[in-house]
Amino acid sequence: MTQLEEDKATIEKLTSLGDQIVEQIENGENPHIEKPVRSRSNVEFDEDRGILTLGDSTSTRYFMNIGHARKFMQTMLIAAKTKELIQEGRTASVRELYYQLKHTIPGLDENTLEDQDESDPVIVDIETALDTLREQLHLIAEPKGRLFGPITIDDQGDEVNCLELGKSGLGIPSIVDDYEFVSHDADYVLVVETSAMVNRLVEEDFHKEHDAIILSSSGQPSRGVRRLTRMMHEELNLPVYIFTDGDPWGYYIYSVLKAGSMNLAFESKRLSTPDANLIGMTMSDIEEYGLENVTEQLKGKDPDTSGGPTKDYKRAKDMMGYEWFQHKDWQDQLQTMIDKGVRIEQQALASQSLEFVANEYLPQKIERGDFLP
Amino acid sequence: MTQLEEDKATIEKLTSLGDQIVEQIENGENPHIEKPVRSRSNVEFDEDRGILTLGDSTSTRYFMNIGHARKFMQTMLIAAKTKELIQEGRTASVRELYYQLKHTIPGLDENTLEDQDESDPVIVDIETALDTLREQLHLIAEPKGRLFGPITIDDQGDEVNCLELGKSGLGIPSIVDDYEFVSHDADYVLVVETSAMVNRLVEEDFHKEHDAIILSSSGQPSRGVRRLTRMMHEELNLPVYIFTDGDPWGYYIYSVLKAGSMNLAFESKRLSTPDANLIGMTMSDIEEYGLENVTEQLKGKDPDTSGGPTKDYKRAKDMMGYEWFQHKDWQDQLQTMIDKGVRIEQQALASQSLEFVANEYLPQKIERGDFLP
Repeated sequence: MTQLEEDKATIEKLTSLGDQIVEQIENGENPHIEKPVRSRSNVEFDEDRGILTLGDSTSTRYFMNIGHARKFMQTMLIAAKTKELIQEGRTASVRELYYQLKHTIPGLDENTLEDQDESDPVIVDIETALDTLREQLHLIAEPKGRLFGPITIDDQGDEVNCLELGKSGLGIPSIVDDYEFVSHDADYVLVVETSAMVNRLVEEDFHKEHDAIILSSSGQPSRGVRRLTRMMHEELNLPVYIFTDGDPWGYYIYSVLKAGSMNLAFESKRLSTPDANLIGMTMSDIEEYGLENVTEQLKGKDPDTSGGPTKDYKRAKDMMGYEWFQHKDWQDQLQTMIDKGVRIEQQALASQSLEFVANEYLPQKIERGDFLP
Repeated sequence: MTQLEEDKATIEKLTSLGDQIVEQIENGENPHIEKPVRSRSNVEFDEDRGILTLGDSTSTRYFMNIGHARKFMQTMLIAAKTKELIQEGRTASVRELYYQLKHTIPGLDENTLEDQDESDPVIVDIETALDTLREQLHLIAEPKGRLFGPITIDDQGDEVNCLELGKSGLGIPSIVDDYEFVSHDADYVLVVETSAMVNRLVEEDFHKEHDAIILSSSGQPSRGVRRLTRMMHEELNLPVYIFTDGDPWGYYIYSVLKAGSMNLAFESKRLSTPDANLIGMTMSDIEEYGLENVTEQLKGKDPDTSGGPTKDYKRAKDMMGYEWFQHKDWQDQLQTMIDKGVRIEQQALASQSLEFVANEYLPQKIERGDFLP
């Protein structure tokens, strides 16, 4: 779908929401909006598609309900404003949206919005009620992440060759749906947890020598990075390898990129890449690459022992229970982590040599197809 | 100075440190390193240069001192490793440096380093002792920030026209000293606190229509952004305008960009831009642009009243005491902030209209030369 078609589809959804309310009023009904329940109880793992989704439970927000009226009004305000944004071809941050809509209600001593904490959840309500994403509503999130590699992207009419951006790279914006992939010469996409590792790989010319598109996630990936990963996999048919620290936090980053997150399960179908694989760091790497001296202790205590905070241990055990970590290979990795009580960072590979990760570790893993599912 | 000359100069400093120690040993002296004291008591505001600097107090680290020996050993290890980095033309993150040097000392049951908390302060010791920056030692920090505007930069042999990077922009790396400014058509540099405001300005084509180089600082500016701002001012002779939220945090960002920070005063002379001015948000803007309804309350309580945390109020009062905020205009702004108990965000300008900041606010301020010193 082009950006124009997508905008049209979103405007239709917003318009039909408005039409529906008008119709309810004309029929003498109590105006209301139905939306899926977002609590964990309604989050399901869709095994066929390999993603987290929302189940069938819905809730209804009524205008003539003292507990709902204010939120109902805010929902209408935000829906109308985002429609305006799309029509004007503008985007806004959720902070700007808040300021744009904050005003005193005529005749009342009350503001439409007192705090951004009021508008943010209403945005999510509209996203779920209309089965749309905030990016489609032209609302932007904080941009984070950089891109390097053999791909030319058309961004707002500028054709950017991402192989010619030195060690700076392209800043990945919040909204990437309007990117057009002009041409590429890439074998795969590598999403990397830490900026330092991206710098290492770029300094070693890994993206040039191995025809790799490198995306930095800089910790938990931004929505832009998640969407771009998905788009490159889908449109360019490129395999996606995720490269994180070998710890519960790193594996959670992997899980979000692959299957989505529980809090925002309704987004998974556009932001996640179920075919992605983890290339490292794995618990098996520690022995295989002689990294025993550069592991770190897991934080916290095994929850089966008594006393003290459980932290990393609890996280690892929780993950072992998730449906999307049931593959034997994952169960083995997580059990090893708990048994040994250690974690291993990407940067620990530097203990071999700075160039080791680029010249041996990653090429060997890719050659052997040595990934976690 | 070219990158090559700079590398040579840094290697000379590191070599002379080593020579000095060898000489001390040959003379039968207790090997030692002298370095400036970094505590606040030794931080001074250099009024002539408009920056924070370190004073004349020094301390000495001895090898044959039970309290110093371990740190002395670590200092030697890190100095030697950074020399190696420079000679190899590589850079490393401080995390990688830690892993590169962590190993068991032969014959002892002790590691060279147990934790990155041990290596990080030693890096600062070497920076101050040798009057050098970590970037000159080829150590990189977390990259943050983006650049847009009419300038062509040579980065590692790639000539990047930063006007043709759509809404993505160039990722600003940690080390920018090797950037070469090939050509430009800019009237000034605008450093912007929030990413959302940068998106707004880029969406309104502000960088194109006003020949502005826009740097996003995304909160507290990274070392790369600070150095790049300084370099563009110095080498291209461009005025620098800083655009932050109108609150103590925003003004502190301004203060760091302009004069440096107290914790890292030894860096000011390469990372700060004393000629920079604040373009907004100011307390006077509230009345002038009718923003009374979109201010936010200062957090905390006036410290002159009793009870409760003082937060924003204390911060503002502290700033009024700083030597580099003694200009009457600044005293007036900060006093107004405290008296009214309000702060004003960049995004609050959206209450006028989304394009207001680009079409009216900034051009008017620049036209009138309406800046804070």
